[in-house]
Order: sequence, then C-alpha cells, then structure tokens
Amino acid sequence: MKTIELFDTTLRDGTQGEGISLSIHDKIGIALKLDEFGIDIIEGGWPGSNPRDEEFFRQIKQFNLLNSKISAFGSTARNIDKVETDLNLNALLFAETPVVSIFGKTWKFHSEKGLGLTEDENEELIYKSVLFLKQHGRKVVFDAEHFFDGYKDDNLFALKMLKAAESAGADVITLCDTNGGSMTNEIRDAVSAVIKNINKPVGIHTHNDGDLAVANSLIAVEAGASHVQGTINGVGERCGNANLISIIPALILKMNAATKTEIMLDRLTSLSNYVYELMNLVPNSRAAYVGNSAFAHKGGIHVSAVLKDSRMYEHINPGNVGNKQRVLVSDLAGQSNIRYKAKELGIDLSKNNELSKKVVSHIKELEFDGYQFEGAEASFELILRSETNEFSPFFSTPDSKVNVSFDNKQQKTSEAVIKIEVGGEIEHTAANGDGPVNALDNALRKALIRFYPEIAEIKLLDYKVRVLNEKHGTSAKVRVLIESGDGNDTWSTVGVSENIIEASWQALCDSMNYKLFKMEKDKSLSLMDQSRKYYSC
Amino acid sequence: MKTIELFDTTLRDGTQGEGISLSIHDKIGIALKLDEFGIDIIEGGWPGSNPRDEEFFRQIKQFNLLNSKISAFGSTARNIDKVETDLNLNALLFAETPVVSIFGKTWKFHSEKGLGLTEDENEELIYKSVLFLKQHGRKVVFDAEHFFDGYKDDNLFALKMLKAAESAGADVITLCDTNGGSMTNEIRDAVSAVIKNINKPVGIHTHNDGDLAVANSLIAVEAGASHVQGTINGVGERCGNANLISIIPALILKMNAATKTEIMLDRLTSLSNYVYELMNLVPNSRAAYVGNSAFAHKGGIHVSAVLKDSRMYEHINPGNVGNKQRVLVSDLAGQSNIRYKAKELGIDLSKNNELSKKVVSHIKELEFDGYQFEGAEASFELILRSETNEFSPFFSTPDSKVNVSFDNKQQKTSEAVIKIEVGGEIEHTAANGDGPVNALDNALRKALIRFYPEIAEIKLLDYKVRVLNEKHGTSAKVRVLIESGDGNDTWSTVGVSENIIEASWQALCDSMNYKLFKMEKDKSLSLMDQSRKYYSC
Repeated sequence: MKTIELFDTTLRDGTQGEGISLSIHDKIGIALKLDEFGIDIIEGGWPGSNPRDEEFFRQIKQFNLLNSKISAFGSTARNIDKVETDLNLNALLFAETPVVSIFGKTWKFHSEKGLGLTEDENEELIYKSVLFLKQHGRKVVFDAEHFFDGYKDDNLFALKMLKAAESAGADVITLCDTNGGSMTNEIRDAVSAVIKNINKPVGIHTHNDGDLAVANSLIAVEAGASHVQGTINGVGERCGNANLISIIPALILKMNAATKTEIMLDRLTSLSNYVYELMNLVPNSRAAYVGNSAFAHKGGIHVSAVLKDSRMYEHINPGNVGNKQRVLVSDLAGQSNIRYKAKELGIDLSKNNELSKKVVSHIKELEFDGYQFEGAEASFELILRSETNEFSPFFSTPDSKVNVSFDNKQQKTSEAVIKIEVGGEIEHTAANGDGPVNALDNALRKALIRFYPEIAEIKLLDYKVRVLNEKHGTSAKVRVLIESGDGNDTWSTVGVSENIIEASWQALCDSMNYKLFKMEKDKSLSLMDQSRKYYSC
Repeated sequence: MKTIELFDTTLRDGTQGEGISLSIHDKIGIALKLDEFGIDIIEGGWPGSNPRDEEFFRQIKQFNLLNSKISAFGSTARNIDKVETDLNLNALLFAETPVVSIFGKTWKFHSEKGLGLTEDENEELIYKSVLFLKQHGRKVVFDAEHFFDGYKDDNLFALKMLKAAESAGADVITLCDTNGGSMTNEIRDAVSAVIKNINKPVGIHTHNDGDLAVANSLIAVEAGASHVQGTINGVGERCGNANLISIIPALILKMNAATKTEIMLDRLTSLSNYVYELMNLVPNSRAAYVGNSAFAHKGGIHVSAVLKDSRMYEHINPGNVGNKQRVLVSDLAGQSNIRYKAKELGIDLSKNNELSKKVVSHIKELEFDGYQFEGAEASFELILRSETNEFSPFFSTPDSKVNVSFDNKQQKTSEAVIKIEVGGEIEHTAANGDGPVNALDNALRKALIRFYPEIAEIKLLDYKVRVLNEKHGTSAKVRVLIESGDGNDTWSTVGVSENIIEASWQALCDSMNYKLFKMEKDKSLSLMDQSRKYYSC
C-alpha cells in the first residue's frame, strides 16, 4: 500500500485558466475547504508575480490549518551570480510558507532558446536556487518544467537537471508535462527511468491537452511517483490541469493507495461544487464521480437493471464520493422511471394503481407536447404533488400582457403588465426589464412580494431555451428551462409553448410555486390549506 | 503502422446522455458531417426501441454516403428458441443497414441476475443471435457488454462468450467498459488476453466514469485493438462515452496510426462545434484539441515564449485540427481567419490594409458582444459587403412593436406592428402569429411583398436560440440563429440581444436582405444602385 502526498494548485496554476479569477476572499475560502478535505500541500500563488498573491500569503497565516501546508510558487533565479539577492526567490521567502515550489528548465530547447543558457549554466542555476531555499529552512518542491518533452528530446540533459535539484537538497522532484501532450507510455517509461536515478520522492504534474491528464497522473503513480499535483475540477491554462476530483477517488477506491492525510472522500462532490461556485463556472454535469449526471440513468434497460442491483451500471457506490443515484424521466425510459422518481419523493405509486396510471399518462402527454422533466425535477414534483392533492398553486394569473418595442435608433423597451390573484385579492402591476422575459420576471416578483416576502430570496441561476421543432421556423415550439436557487437549495423548472414568453412564464411560475411549496412543507403547515383554492398558473 | 476502423455512436449511445435529444433532421445532419469527416461506421440508433430511430434509418437510405456505412443497434434475442422471430433482431434487419451491432452479456453477474440464464444458455443465445444476422448478410459488430468487469469477475466465462460470437461469424468483437470504471492496466491486460484468444478484429468501447475513457481506448489500441467506438464530444449516458474528438488526433498525430478512411483532421474543431450546436450544448472551452481555450495563452511567461516559438507551450500545431492559437492579453488572433473567410467570398482584404483593419475590428467587436459567425455565414457576408460598399440594406424599419398577451383560459395572442421604409415609401402594417417572433416574421413579409415579391420564396428552415450568459437568468443575452431557404439555396443569419424578440428580428432582417442581395447579384444589376439609400435594419 502506497502513500501519496496530494498537492493542490487550484489557487496558482488553476487561476491561469481562461475566464478564471478569484478574489483574495475566494482564495482563502478555497484554501480552508482544501484543508478540511485533507489536501497535504496547497500552492497559494506566485508572490513574485502579483500583489494579490502576496496578500493571500499574508492573510492565510492567520488561520490554524488542520491538515494542509501552504506553498508559494516561483522560478529559479534570473541570474546565476545573483541568487542571494534574486527578487523572485526573496519574495518566496517573504511569503513565509513552510513549503516552496520552484520550477526550472529541464528541456534543452527551453533552456537554450528561452533562457539562452548552456547546459552547465542551467544546471548551476537550478542547484543554486534550490540550495538557497533549503538554506532558509523550506521544504522545497522542484518542478521540472517540460520534463517529459525534455526527456524525449535529450534524456541525459533532463536527468542531469533533476540530479542538480536533488543534490541541492530538494525534497520532492516533480516531473511536469507542461504542454500536456504526452502519451501514457511516454509517462510510464520516463517516470520509471527517473525512479531508478533519483532517491527523493518523485512527483507528477500533468496538463490535459491530450485529454489524458488523469490517466497520466495515475500511471505515474503506478510507475513509482508518490506526490501528485492537480487542481479541483481540472481548471488551468489551456485545457486545464490534472483533475484531483477524478484522481483522488481512483487512488483511494481503485488503487488501494493511502494518502498522507486522511481524505474526507464523501465531501468530494461538495468540494467540486464549491469551487465551481466561487469561480462562477457552470458545473460540468458529466464530470466523473461528482457530476450531476455521473450516476443518472436514462436508458430503459439500464434503469430496470439498476433497480435490481445498482452495481449493474455503477462503477462505485455514489455515496462514497458524496454523490447520488438519479433516474431520469425521459421518453427513452418507461413507467419504471416515473415510479422510481415518485418513490424518491416519498410517493409510492405502486400502492394506488389508478393514480399511478393517471400520473404516468399525464407525464407522457406532457412529454409528447415537448416537456422534458429530466432537467426540471421541481416541475415534475409539482405535477406529482398536485395529482396526489398535496400541492395547489399559491397564486393565479387571470391575465398578463407583454409589450416590446424597438426602433432603428437602438431604443428598446420591454414592459410587462400582469394581474395576479392570491386568496381573492387582486394585484395589478407592471415592470420594465432587459427584454420581455426579464420584464415578466420583475413584474411577477413585484406582485407576489407583498403576499410572500420570501420570494425575495429566489435567484435565477440559469436560463436555457431550446427550439423543439426547428423546421417550423419562427412558429416552432420552444422549451424553456430555468434553474433557481435560494442560497440553500437549487431547483429546476420547465415551460413549453410556441410563444417563448409564455413558456418562460410557465417556468417562472413553477419556480415561485416550488419555493413556496417547500417553505410551507418545512414549516409543517397543512399542505391542503382550505383557504387556498386550486389555481392554474 | 496500424489501421484503425472508427465507429461513431453519437446518434445512439450519445443520445442516452442527460439533456440530449435530437430531431431526425439533426440526426441526418450529424450523419452527413460524420460521413464527410471520414468516419467508417455510424451507429444511427436502436430501431427496436423507438419509432424516431426507425424513421432515421428510412431517411438516411436516400443519401449516397461517401465514406461511412450505417449501423443499427440492438441486443441478442430475448428467447433462445425464438431467435428467427425475435422482434428486436427483425427490426434490425428491417432497418436495412449494411452493418449491425448487437450487444450480449459477458459478465456472469448480468447474465445470471439480469437475464436469469445459465452459462450455456447465454453462450447459445449469443451464438444464435449473431448467426441469424450473419445469415442475412450483415457485417456484425458484437458488443461484449461489461466485458472488463466480466473478465475481472470470471475471465473464462467472459472469453467463452466472445468465442461464441466469433464462431457464429461476428466480424468485430468489441470489448465494452460499460460501467466506465476500469483502470488503464485492467484494460491493457484484458485486451492483450483477448488478442491472444480471438482471431477476429477486436474493438474497444469505453465510458468515462473514471475520467479515463480516452486513455483506455488508446491503451486498448496499443494492446492490439483495431476498431474504436466513441462519440463526438464524449456525450453519452452518465459521464459520457470515449471522446472521438480526443482519440482521433491522438491516433493520427501521436500514435502514427492510419485510419481505414482518410480523416479530414483539419475539420475536427468545426465537427465538434457543429454537434454541440445541434445538441444545444454549450461547447466545452477547455476541450482537448478543439476547445476555444485549447491553444489560448494567458500566463505572461507562456505568452512571450509562444511568440518566440509556439512549440514551447503547444503540444501540436493547432491548425492541424482546425483550431487556432489565441493570446488572451492582446487578442490579435482571428484576423487571419477573417481574411481567409473574406478571400473565400472573393474579397481580398490583404490588398487594402485600412479596410482590413476596419473589418477585423468590426467583427471582433460583434464577437465580443456575443455574435458568432461560424453558424451564420450570410450575416458575415453582409457585414463584409457593406464594409466594401457592395451591399446596403433593402429596407429600413423606423419602428416596431410586439404585443403579447395570455390568460389563464389558455387564450393567447401575439401581434406585431411594424413600419418599414423602402425608397422613401412607408409601409405600416400588422400581423398576428404563433408567438411574438412568428408575428414579426408574418408582418415583415406582409410589408415587404409589395416591393419585393420574391420574398414569398423564402422559407424559414431552422430557428435556434442559445442563451449566452446563462447565469444572468432572465436578463441574459440570447443569440438567435435562423436558417432560411428558397428551394435552390440555404443560408444562415444571426442576431444577438438581451431581448429575444429583437435578436430574432435582426436575424430575420438579415435573412431577407441576403436573399434580395443574392437576387440582385444574380440579375447582374448594379450593386450600388444610386436610388437606394444606406439604411440600417
């Protein structure tokens, strides 16, 4: 049983990804989550390159981390003769982290063409830079930049540079696939050769340009590496870094490896979602282990098999990584899907055959009309609960109007005028918006808030439009999916119409109703309050 | 040098992914693109399981494919004693495809628990099912479902089932990692063992539940597999299938493999985008090889190195896969693309530097606003031709209004009131429609027809809506793509706005203008008719 040291570089290499930027507050938040989760080393940034990173190191010192050590990142010195006074290396010391990682060139091409150094000069630069940091009492991780390309090009040159770092006292020698294009056999062969030549722990740092970063990391571990670098959700420059979210469960559940610190594996899914949220990225629903679809079954055969024994179509127990099994309601699947879904919600349709038939045929009808419930579980739940008389809408909308006008001077207005009714009281109001749907959304909130102040908590997180029968051109039907959240929970609703505004309206009304329904349930109020009538929205 | 047969299952296994549904029109479109690209076998669907797939097989027969053979998918017979009359197998024959793939159980656990068959019964079922299809002259691909889990559990059982398919005459024996959780070494060992025992070509079909599907496919090829199954963009049930978009360039550029049909590798990026578009999925910007960020350099060091020599931080030449280098700080990339496109239309921008700069900066601005011209070449052409003074709009629209109302009695009306101007004459008119965009479309046609009777020929073939910044909820920007045709030709146009009605309006106006522009050009009329003023639509 192997013991692996986990090194996270989400806060450094991860932020080099396109469209990713983190505030100091976000960086601190992520570091604390990584610590709690059980990561051994957290690379926080490059203090020599930007002031935000310097501030991060200043602030993180104030926290007592449970498990993690913080590392600062930088490069070898600029000048062989001025290592002691090198700005970059001194910035690393100034960050006062127990661990420091520095990268040096191990590909001759880069050393010669990039830095203009001879082989001996590059070797000396690495040696002196590592030595300087060791003399100041740091744990030093030497990142051999472009090691695999360098090894392929001139293996003696590449190994010589590792030896320089080793003899200067580096604590870990990390082999980097910086361009991310190495193949699995190249990684295996080069790591095996290094293991024979180097007596310090060997690390692996891969990028995903060939869609092989996870495999390359695991294969390096098989070949003897014992330190693994990567990022949460695989964020990073170009195609990203090796995804620790995929690597960690593979090491623990499939390779029988131990990690230096015990990992809270059942928090894997929530860690992944947390980092997506702070980076303002839409989570990858197909992500291995943690994706919303990772244990979602759609095909009819798969569904009925999974109901017999979930090992039939699941490679691990989703609970091990904090994820869960889902059965999708879609036209590829049959009745068993709908019954399963109902059961999840605590409604046993198998007891009442009449009701079961009614629900299934209602859902099938709606699907035929273009509704799709696999992305709209809240709408699905409202339908079920109204069939079982547990839910009736919290408001009705006797009538609504939307007016849009625009001219060739780029002036445009969108106005919605709506009338809603709650318990016999009418609210007639209007609002503007960026476009007609936004105007409706604003008007609906304005109208409801006096009856249900909790509506203010709802945020619309996602809005998708799908044209169904595209061949009908502008008279085609559209399906609108809306994802909403209130800080604690998220839910999805759907609407379908040839009129995009009406489709959006249906999904909006469902979203509001779902929130109110949940609240009422939480408050344990009677679900069938006689003072409310059954309205249709 | 190895020769690999490529088998695409985007239209079958791909559509089992959550949130993915394709119309028959979409399926035909994707099949034609795959054919052009050079895929050997296209699995079109499961004719026994749903009527939409049956219709696909009926329609695709009417096309003369250049490279691809179509395959239908199904399972072994339900009953050993009724193979000849099995509904599923007969549906496969009825699809009249040259290739048929059927899956059979090769994991004892599934055979026993799922089907309730003894080892001998399962073997016989596989043998008889394959034999039946061979007797009807099909090329048969036998998909050994759960082979890797089955091999780990009971290798003799698993190999016996492959032997049954082989002796019945199966042309390819495909090993499936159905649950997607196998590790690279398990794949290597099992494929090597099969290669020693089976004399037919061996295929590989992996899923991505461990984030290893691409690596597992390539490692299987190294171990002797010569038929590779996967989907475009890796779509598929749960975490998806092996991504052919990553596998194909690795085979060709890195493993020195040949493909049975020559692959148009420089269309890889556009194929990936096309399939994302038809599935209404947001493209993965970090996707290996084809992602918008795949060759985008952000880090300062990377950028300056890449400008010296792009091999420094690029594992391949992006042009090889139809992608391009981007430098994120000063986004100068794309100029050459625009010049290239202009050249295709017969406009040489390199001659006129002033004009070239102006066009490039205009397009860049529009792209920044969310326009995308890859799917809207007619709009792109109109912009270019108006910069070169060859085109000016055929009508202006001083102002437009759309009113939508709906109530809880399911009554809804959509009315558009527009004013257009042609050569100083105003036409003020109104129309109803199925939804607001359709009303606008109807009103515009009604207004234009007296000036340009040819407008009557235009049919709207396709209408797509993509929400751009989904996280902005109902105030998000939307992009509308419209495809139009007149019986001879088809063209695509685009509009972008936070207001979906205005975005649709832009795309509609562009479509009408493009038709009129083409007609004028065909008639060899003066392109700069002085009687027309320059209007903006």
